[in-house]
Amino acid sequence: MSELREASDARRGVLFVVSAPSGAGKTTLVRSALERLPDLELSVSFTTRRPRVGEVDGRDYFFVEEGEFVRRLAAGEFVEWASVFDHSYATPRAPLDAAIAAGHDVLLDVDIQGARSIKAAYPRDAVGVFVVPPSLDELEVRLRARGTDGEEQVRRRLERARLELQALAEPGIYDYRVVNRERARAGEDLRSIILAERCRNDRAR
Amino acid sequence: MSELREASDARRGVLFVVSAPSGAGKTTLVRSALERLPDLELSVSFTTRRPRVGEVDGRDYFFVEEGEFVRRLAAGEFVEWASVFDHSYATPRAPLDAAIAAGHDVLLDVDIQGARSIKAAYPRDAVGVFVVPPSLDELEVRLRARGTDGEEQVRRRLERARLELQALAEPGIYDYRVVNRERARAGEDLRSIILAERCRNDRAR
Repeated sequence: MSELREASDARRGVLFVVSAPSGAGKTTLVRSALERLPDLELSVSFTTRRPRVGEVDGRDYFFVEEGEFVRRLAAGEFVEWASVFDHSYATPRAPLDAAIAAGHDVLLDVDIQGARSIKAAYPRDAVGVFVVPPSLDELEVRLRARGTDGEEQVRRRLERARLELQALAEPGIYDYRVVNRERARAGEDLRSIILAERCRNDRAR
Repeated sequence: MSELREASDARRGVLFVVSAPSGAGKTTLVRSALERLPDLELSVSFTTRRPRVGEVDGRDYFFVEEGEFVRRLAAGEFVEWASVFDHSYATPRAPLDAAIAAGHDVLLDVDIQGARSIKAAYPRDAVGVFVVPPSLDELEVRLRARGTDGEEQVRRRLERARLELQALAEPGIYDYRVVNRERARAGEDLRSIILAERCRNDRAR
């Protein structure tokens, strides 16, 4: 019965917006979700910074000059954008609209401000996921274990994490929280969230 | 930081209410979810029918006399109840309340009327899952393959399934639909729904 098949299968794509305080292990989780769910697309951001060794234009970022960035921004092409130090970053809107219409799911790795903007722009189609460390003590242990930051930097990151965790209580941004206590378990949680959202009755067309 | 740990861990238990048209494969799915998630409790119903060989009181059902059933019903102990042929069945409320308070998840295998009552009684804590066959044609193939029903019975079940599928469109009952196209995939979907709901930010206390 083709009506039933359509009712069961056809759905809009979902935007999975993933954020985390630094050190919570988001990058690894996102990478593992993309590996385990090959039909999940990754949103590619625009940036004005130079490519690093090994980075590929159109895969890691769309690398553009400042002038082009500003032109696109003014044309309303970005859902969200931010400037960090000397460089700007932005999420293009067109690929998201195309994915939603085609029923493809997209993963967006963005900060809290970015998540806020995307949820506001796509209240129905975006799902917010916040990856949290099991505790701030544990986050401190992990930041020190990385060995990449000095004492002052570790303290700044912890202070920032403490602030960022408040975003969990902000209504309408983060639908889910994934506690990254153990990598495999957290990866399973993120994957489950994606599979479960695909089964949501109100997403069926 | 114990505040963060509590904020991440402590949550109310969730009632997973699973229904399906007959022949959709619900029983197998429910059994596999219970095996793969050992911390998931199964709601045990009261019934006035006699135990069958191998059935254990308190595990398969609470077997009671009609008088006791009526007394409990009048005392408001049941969230939902129904009479099928000569026997009555009911879901007791107390174990659900206890599980929710203790943060334990419960799986309830009930029909559409039961799901409606439980969602109405627990609008915040109950999650409805409807298991659907990939199509009515496929359901017909499966019902015939079971070989347990005559032609007339198969036709009645199909007619009933066609009606029951309308429940998917009824607001506020079924949050998710699991299309049982392939057993392993559907089992994975049901398990993902349970794991994902445990991560819901608005369930955290």
